[in-house]
Amino acid sequence: MNILQGQIQFINELEKLKTVKRRNLTLDNKRPENSAEHSWHLAMMVPVLAPYSKTPIDQLKVIKMLLVHDLGEIYDGDSWLYEQSDQKEIQQKELTAFKRLIGSLPANQQSELLDLFMEFEVQETEEAKFAKVIDAIQPLLNHLQVSDENENPDGIAASKVWEKKAFVRDYAPDLWLMVEETINESIRKGLYQE
Amino acid sequence: MNILQGQIQFINELEKLKTVKRRNLTLDNKRPENSAEHSWHLAMMVPVLAPYSKTPIDQLKVIKMLLVHDLGEIYDGDSWLYEQSDQKEIQQKELTAFKRLIGSLPANQQSELLDLFMEFEVQETEEAKFAKVIDAIQPLLNHLQVSDENENPDGIAASKVWEKKAFVRDYAPDLWLMVEETINESIRKGLYQE
Repeated sequence: MNILQGQIQFINELEKLKTVKRRNLTLDNKRPENSAEHSWHLAMMVPVLAPYSKTPIDQLKVIKMLLVHDLGEIYDGDSWLYEQSDQKEIQQKELTAFKRLIGSLPANQQSELLDLFMEFEVQETEEAKFAKVIDAIQPLLNHLQVSDENENPDGIAASKVWEKKAFVRDYAPDLWLMVEETINESIRKGLYQE
Repeated sequence: MNILQGQIQFINELEKLKTVKRRNLTLDNKRPENSAEHSWHLAMMVPVLAPYSKTPIDQLKVIKMLLVHDLGEIYDGDSWLYEQSDQKEIQQKELTAFKRLIGSLPANQQSELLDLFMEFEVQETEEAKFAKVIDAIQPLLNHLQVSDENENPDGIAASKVWEKKAFVRDYAPDLWLMVEETINESIRKGLYQE
């Protein structure tokens, strides 16, 4: 297999992320959102919300990070934010899947993608933190927009939502008021149990 | 409406691209691919295939161009590559839709996105040309990968495919052999009528 063939194999493998279902729904008959379209949505939010980052950020890095951040789900599916589960174990499984996925790429491209994936995971840089903020906001907005009143089949508790999204206050203070309003409106709509 | 509210309105409006169906199919029960996940796939291809561009390209620009390039379909749907139709009219309609979509953003962000959208449309820069190459390759790869043997419900003619994809030879000569092989393999698989 030559270099380009390995790259095409990777590109073909990416098809599978379109089959990874999330708990969020879409506007067309409320089918489950998949991780590929979710990742597109996040990437689109970067140029729009970048002015609210604490420090100037490298948009290319944030966008690439968001494009690849869910690729660890490609063989085993998404793990849900509100699920009780061993986070360390999930992270390890997703890292293994990610490495398997990128295995057909040339070494320099494997490094680039793995670095982006790990930068998002370890959450030390401003880019990684802002990417995490974006990844936390989109499902909130989607949920409020797409769900019917009092639709809470999984019995999500409002307290859990506040707990999971609280980091936005530190990571992107200029976006916190909006997040607060979104959560409060969702509670009023009956999407989270008080 | 303050600036951030206008930006959130835009982000919510983006949900609709997930409902725009394309002719290409996906691996999960062969549902139609939507333009949001398609755009994600294209953006992912940029760091992988950038080494094959004729001149060094601005990856951020190419990625952003591909993220927004289908947003003109958001209110009226996708127009199919092999359809007989008035291209000028479609372009005008998509531009109108795009402007309507971005209308809730602050002026500087409207300009940025409109410039990216138009740069892709007018096809003068190396970034726009490379973005067009990526946009031409992904459906070919997807089609060969996902379709069953002899599946050609729309009776696509091989000659049409060669005609529509021929520009890749000039725009990205280093990718042409791969494109040729992909089309020939698709013909052998019965996906295009000879």
